[in-house]
Amino acid sequence: MKVVPSRGVSGPLGFESGGLACGIKASGKDDLGLVFSRKPAAVAASFTTNRVAAAPIIVAKENLGKTARAVLINSGNANACTGPQGLKDAHRMVSLAADQLKIDRTEVLIASTGIIGAALPMEALESGIKRLETARGELPDLAFSKAIMTTDAFYKQLAVEITLGGQAVVIGGTAKGAGMIAPDLAPHATMLAVLTTDAIVPAADLQAYLDKSLNQSFNSISVDGDTSTNDCVFALANGAAGAVVSSPNDRAVFQEALDYVCLQLAKMIVRDGEGATKLIVYKVAGAKTARDARQVAKTIADSMLVKTAFFGEDPNWGRFLMAAGKAGVDFEADDLDIDINGVPLVRSGQATGTDLAKVAAEMKGEEIQVWLNLNQGNYQDIFYGCDLSYEYVKINAEYST
Amino acid sequence: MKVVPSRGVSGPLGFESGGLACGIKASGKDDLGLVFSRKPAAVAASFTTNRVAAAPIIVAKENLGKTARAVLINSGNANACTGPQGLKDAHRMVSLAADQLKIDRTEVLIASTGIIGAALPMEALESGIKRLETARGELPDLAFSKAIMTTDAFYKQLAVEITLGGQAVVIGGTAKGAGMIAPDLAPHATMLAVLTTDAIVPAADLQAYLDKSLNQSFNSISVDGDTSTNDCVFALANGAAGAVVSSPNDRAVFQEALDYVCLQLAKMIVRDGEGATKLIVYKVAGAKTARDARQVAKTIADSMLVKTAFFGEDPNWGRFLMAAGKAGVDFEADDLDIDINGVPLVRSGQATGTDLAKVAAEMKGEEIQVWLNLNQGNYQDIFYGCDLSYEYVKINAEYST
Repeated sequence: MKVVPSRGVSGPLGFESGGLACGIKASGKDDLGLVFSRKPAAVAASFTTNRVAAAPIIVAKENLGKTARAVLINSGNANACTGPQGLKDAHRMVSLAADQLKIDRTEVLIASTGIIGAALPMEALESGIKRLETARGELPDLAFSKAIMTTDAFYKQLAVEITLGGQAVVIGGTAKGAGMIAPDLAPHATMLAVLTTDAIVPAADLQAYLDKSLNQSFNSISVDGDTSTNDCVFALANGAAGAVVSSPNDRAVFQEALDYVCLQLAKMIVRDGEGATKLIVYKVAGAKTARDARQVAKTIADSMLVKTAFFGEDPNWGRFLMAAGKAGVDFEADDLDIDINGVPLVRSGQATGTDLAKVAAEMKGEEIQVWLNLNQGNYQDIFYGCDLSYEYVKINAEYST
Repeated sequence: MKVVPSRGVSGPLGFESGGLACGIKASGKDDLGLVFSRKPAAVAASFTTNRVAAAPIIVAKENLGKTARAVLINSGNANACTGPQGLKDAHRMVSLAADQLKIDRTEVLIASTGIIGAALPMEALESGIKRLETARGELPDLAFSKAIMTTDAFYKQLAVEITLGGQAVVIGGTAKGAGMIAPDLAPHATMLAVLTTDAIVPAADLQAYLDKSLNQSFNSISVDGDTSTNDCVFALANGAAGAVVSSPNDRAVFQEALDYVCLQLAKMIVRDGEGATKLIVYKVAGAKTARDARQVAKTIADSMLVKTAFFGEDPNWGRFLMAAGKAGVDFEADDLDIDINGVPLVRSGQATGTDLAKVAAEMKGEEIQVWLNLNQGNYQDIFYGCDLSYEYVKINAEYST
């Protein structure tokens, strides 16, 4: 597997992308993006499990068939909590794209992200869809990746190349997100991402690959513990490279590459978490069940006291134990071990006596590994979180509406 | 029911209190407090459900009989995650108090609050216990209430008088807490509080009254969503007023007064939440079950995006819907109604069109009522939360160890 530099969703053959500013964002920044496949692509998708699902989520779910050719995404407006008018607008968004691209309505997937509760400005959207052009290349990928950003500080894309049966296959992807990031842990829920590949993959297989990748990537991250009304991920396989994912080895290679793309994009989202200064990798081992490991890791990652300790670069390990203890998981406090970046901090529930200045120095990095062993069983899991800073409060208290 | 001004735990007859600085806190502030009953009091208690329970919690649980005469509490050190030495120190804390007060070890209850993971400074504690004096009155109550504070900005106490069978009965109480406040919702878990009464109440009845009061007070608050390793509440009834709580009417009056004292103390804790500038009362109605109502209210109260919106005094109602939707409770987004301080903000899942400036003005108050109707059933619940400010980050990132 090798990275294809500077490429995203149009990295694989037969895909085009693009983006522009159509006037949804008052800032005048890009707010409409499109991924287009020259031929019908097998499709898989996953949507938020939030009970308050936005109109585009409802419409995209309805519209989801076995193949698709376009993914149209607007930023600046979530079209959520907008009632019957919101549904009508989402349907119209599909129709406008289908008409413009001369493809069937069932081949159009849509997503929206931005402010909740405001009507989608349809005039701006309509003129944008008419003007939106797509192509293959670095600049179109950049345009698409930028067009779907909201509070993101940087765009997030990646493409990798693998070889299946002697043929090159590319997997590309773009994701957005910086806040309201805690994709629900049900199998079919995540945040905004588009994944493309030119391999030949039947839709059912693609869904299985995607579900597996999601669980260890987008479903394993949290910025603020808040699950969006608009989370979704789409995967398209258009087969343009002519390579079939068939042998057990091919399947493993493809899964590994998709896992990699999803994990890297997911980590970019946490790194770009609102106000975040650090990415923290929580690895919980020694759990009695996989669910226990996940639950403990997620509970620590979302603890406000743990998050502020990381912002303060303060090895206040009691907060880790407190957070583990409130996770509703059965373990003995006297069995817990904790390392930070491999430095032993806690053994059998007590301080090791390691110089805390040494641990504090480890916490100054931009990526920190926390390893916690419950010593109860053989299951483990990894979860990705960030710190809680003044900037988080600023972004969400001062600049929200 | 009337409030007894300026009184706390020694408001009821036969109780004494006191506090002093014994040197546990580096700041030199008071850090050791004692409540003493002149005769054996029926006792009820409730402890944290955090799996990582501090040594004093373990020892107080072991020691809990049907009667008690003393509650000894130190602040500045939680004696949590301190292993066998911590248990030994907690046992010694009980013995030292019993010897000093010339009462049986089984009549001493203890609690600790402060930094996790550091050994209890036993020399300071021992000298403090020897010097600690108690009396009845305003100053001793103040001394006790102050001695158990940690990051608290103000002390929290209250006493009320009721009449049972023509006899005056007093219920007094003190609580502490400002951070690591999200008492677990199991029947027997809460944070640090001591409640006293001079009524005659058998221990089993006292426990039942306490459990009922806790559920609607200390178990209905959250400052940061983090459940402490040291939460506990003790209730002592020494019968010194000679009044028996017996008739159905007496029982109702007593329960109501205890509910009132617990709720007022709980609300003081949230008002004094770390960095909090507002108390927010979340009332969720129209739920299918009591658990659903609680779950939705608690999930909204703990949402970082909701908390920052309140700090920013920004009626960003989409965040309420988002948080309700992630609570894991079954409802339809199109059925939701929301009012802020009685001003209709959302009806049937959509904006009412109310001038948001009017709603923003309501959010400038120090106590704000959020009413959310799921319109699915007949259950309701109330939960108390606060906002998330720069000061919260400062307190927990800069001043934690």
